[in-house]
Amino acid sequence: MDKLSKKDLLKKAKKPGKDAMRLHPFYKGKIEVLPKCRVKDFNDFGIWYTPGVAEPCKAIKKDKSKVYDYTNKWNTIAVVSDGTRVLGLGDIGPEAGLPVMEGKSLLFKYLGGIDAHPICLDTKDTEEIIQAVKWLKPSYGGINLEDIAKPKCFEILDRLRKEMDIPVWHDDQQGTATIVTAGAINALKLVEKPLDESLFCMVGAGAANIAIARVLIAAGVKQKNIIMTDSKGILHSTRTDLEEQKDYNLVKWEMAVNSNGEERTGPIKDAFLGADICIAASKPGPGTIKKEWVETMANDSIVFATANPVPEIWPWEAEEAGVSIFATGRSDFANQINNSLGFPGIFRGTLDVRAETITDEMCIAAATELANTAEDEGLTKDHIVPTMDSWEVFPREAVAVGMKAIEQGIAGKKLSRQALYDHAVEIIKKARDETKTMMDKGFIQDPDQ
Amino acid sequence: MDKLSKKDLLKKAKKPGKDAMRLHPFYKGKIEVLPKCRVKDFNDFGIWYTPGVAEPCKAIKKDKSKVYDYTNKWNTIAVVSDGTRVLGLGDIGPEAGLPVMEGKSLLFKYLGGIDAHPICLDTKDTEEIIQAVKWLKPSYGGINLEDIAKPKCFEILDRLRKEMDIPVWHDDQQGTATIVTAGAINALKLVEKPLDESLFCMVGAGAANIAIARVLIAAGVKQKNIIMTDSKGILHSTRTDLEEQKDYNLVKWEMAVNSNGEERTGPIKDAFLGADICIAASKPGPGTIKKEWVETMANDSIVFATANPVPEIWPWEAEEAGVSIFATGRSDFANQINNSLGFPGIFRGTLDVRAETITDEMCIAAATELANTAEDEGLTKDHIVPTMDSWEVFPREAVAVGMKAIEQGIAGKKLSRQALYDHAVEIIKKARDETKTMMDKGFIQDPDQ
Repeated sequence: MDKLSKKDLLKKAKKPGKDAMRLHPFYKGKIEVLPKCRVKDFNDFGIWYTPGVAEPCKAIKKDKSKVYDYTNKWNTIAVVSDGTRVLGLGDIGPEAGLPVMEGKSLLFKYLGGIDAHPICLDTKDTEEIIQAVKWLKPSYGGINLEDIAKPKCFEILDRLRKEMDIPVWHDDQQGTATIVTAGAINALKLVEKPLDESLFCMVGAGAANIAIARVLIAAGVKQKNIIMTDSKGILHSTRTDLEEQKDYNLVKWEMAVNSNGEERTGPIKDAFLGADICIAASKPGPGTIKKEWVETMANDSIVFATANPVPEIWPWEAEEAGVSIFATGRSDFANQINNSLGFPGIFRGTLDVRAETITDEMCIAAATELANTAEDEGLTKDHIVPTMDSWEVFPREAVAVGMKAIEQGIAGKKLSRQALYDHAVEIIKKARDETKTMMDKGFIQDPDQ
Repeated sequence: MDKLSKKDLLKKAKKPGKDAMRLHPFYKGKIEVLPKCRVKDFNDFGIWYTPGVAEPCKAIKKDKSKVYDYTNKWNTIAVVSDGTRVLGLGDIGPEAGLPVMEGKSLLFKYLGGIDAHPICLDTKDTEEIIQAVKWLKPSYGGINLEDIAKPKCFEILDRLRKEMDIPVWHDDQQGTATIVTAGAINALKLVEKPLDESLFCMVGAGAANIAIARVLIAAGVKQKNIIMTDSKGILHSTRTDLEEQKDYNLVKWEMAVNSNGEERTGPIKDAFLGADICIAASKPGPGTIKKEWVETMANDSIVFATANPVPEIWPWEAEEAGVSIFATGRSDFANQINNSLGFPGIFRGTLDVRAETITDEMCIAAATELANTAEDEGLTKDHIVPTMDSWEVFPREAVAVGMKAIEQGIAGKKLSRQALYDHAVEIIKKARDETKTMMDKGFIQDPDQ
């Protein structure tokens, strides 16, 4: 872990926010739209617009699937949010959520070569959000749901996955689950504890942790070995408050019934006792998790404090509590358990084989490939998952996800492993080279220079 | 007019469609999303995404108007269609309409420096389209409605203009009206006939011609001097079929009552008799307008045949019928009466002063500036409006439109004429230079090379 003093660490932790307030008004937006077809002279507009464009229109009318060949639908997704659970900031509204969705679109392009439109909806209603996304379908090859509050996010995702024939993904559920699973696989490997024998303390019973638990279980974790908490304490089958709420939040009640094999009860702190690994996806810290609680964990303890923008416990507090491996959601500390490692590669592979949906099996394939990539790079306590600057991770994930979709029979296009890899490398490299060119040529200026 | 043979002209007219079918599958999309902020290294993602991005989010939550400073909303619009009246192709559906909306987005960027997302909706219902656009509002600085069938397009535009606080524009109504008005001003100037004494024959009573008539009247044309036709013939106040339909299409009935001062009746051809200028926005030709009809017009006759992709009458037929000034909607003939001359500059000015809406007065300001630009360039029978490669026209329109909005008290930002001009030039130049760089660097390849 970092050798800086607490004061320096705290100052460092505040720098991105300061820079953000200086640089957001400088750029006034993070993404723009640019032509990707030639404009040699104005005659070309007769090809791209009237009169020439009528021909591809007629061809698509005849065979709707041609929209994937004659337009950018194949590589365009919508990043959709209602702004009700933005980062750890809560319900800040669609306008205030837009900087995050623009940032997400930037990451989609730079890391995955995907064209994403940030769409913040002016409604918070479950049915209306479902309806809005359905109406958007013709233009998009996929939908990334983002920062939508629970429990409505469960129904929105489930319904849209069932009722749409393009892939719909809720990054706060499936994305987070994929990265956490990869991190857990590697962290437990490092401390030499088997996945299926380890005791999991999960702080928070929101969309993220419910999805993480589902994917961990699919990956081999025993549900009985998961002890999950909410603001009232440990989830167990005698929690009448959860039983009463089961119509409203069924998945949480099912978790209470099926997890926690030892039927432990008590406040949050009691979930830490003897746990091998703590996965927190709760409210932003510091102080959400106390040092004293962490001290009660098993030897070689592992803590993932994933709340944004401030982790549930600061790294230096975790270190003082004797944690062996520590991870956060932040890019400015070691071991960033961040969705950014997942969605660009996962969507790349999904779009490239034109998969109908993104299954849990595709998520596990991505998690395994993420874990393997970090291992190939060299596994250490400060490197349990790849970092975003790992060039290999995104094409490798794309291949793993695409091949799994083909294997599951849900791919509209069948490509070879090599073809998938080559295409992913080419399109991601292009995005990065274009960005560099824009900077080199002064189209993107740097206020610090 | 062109000196090529009829056969050559016909071949030339078919070339853009052939090129389109070759080049659409080559590029697989006309626009892409790219970063417009620096990505020096991966630490910058801590500014654009979590954790740094939380600060601008919080600032917008406190003051919603800051979304215009911290995101690209100020320069982003949605090009929204339901695909029910695409070019002259009719109701071809949202997927088949996407190539046109992508082309429109390309033009918005290249000609106006505006970032536009092509959004084709999976509904044809008036209320649902209105609802969808309202839900999209937080991400967008303006809405361009496109290729929506009449008469629902009237209600959709009127309602959204009333009920939204960002500008909403239906290009097939207001855009077409602006360019046609500019063309009519200059064509009549050339043949030395005053606008307020000329007899107008208008073929077609759809969204375009109804809007054109409204703007022409606002610009000085006498409504009594307009003779409009639909598929059944001349509109007049004794047309009981129109009176019976007035609940369904009130604007058309009002036109029948208030136009055609001489109470002329009869089939379409009778509207041409003695007319000074014919404005057709009807069904695609050839043969929609017959040579013999045009021969009955007054001396120095003017014909605008604006249907796409094929004009109501071919240029060579119009020439044979003795037309003095002829215009179409196509980029491959002289005098392109095309919306592309309007919307990029009009939206540029509208967004730059953050106008609440786009008034008819702003359209007339744009039309006048368009006409003046062509005159400054040198008015001839083959140059009554500027061409798209006129560099000056878009910033000049932006200034005219922005200044009119400020004058009308509907601008959120007050800029000087010079500041408006300079900003428009800078942002449009950047879009074109970026496109050129992409081609020079090989990011946009040319299949012909």
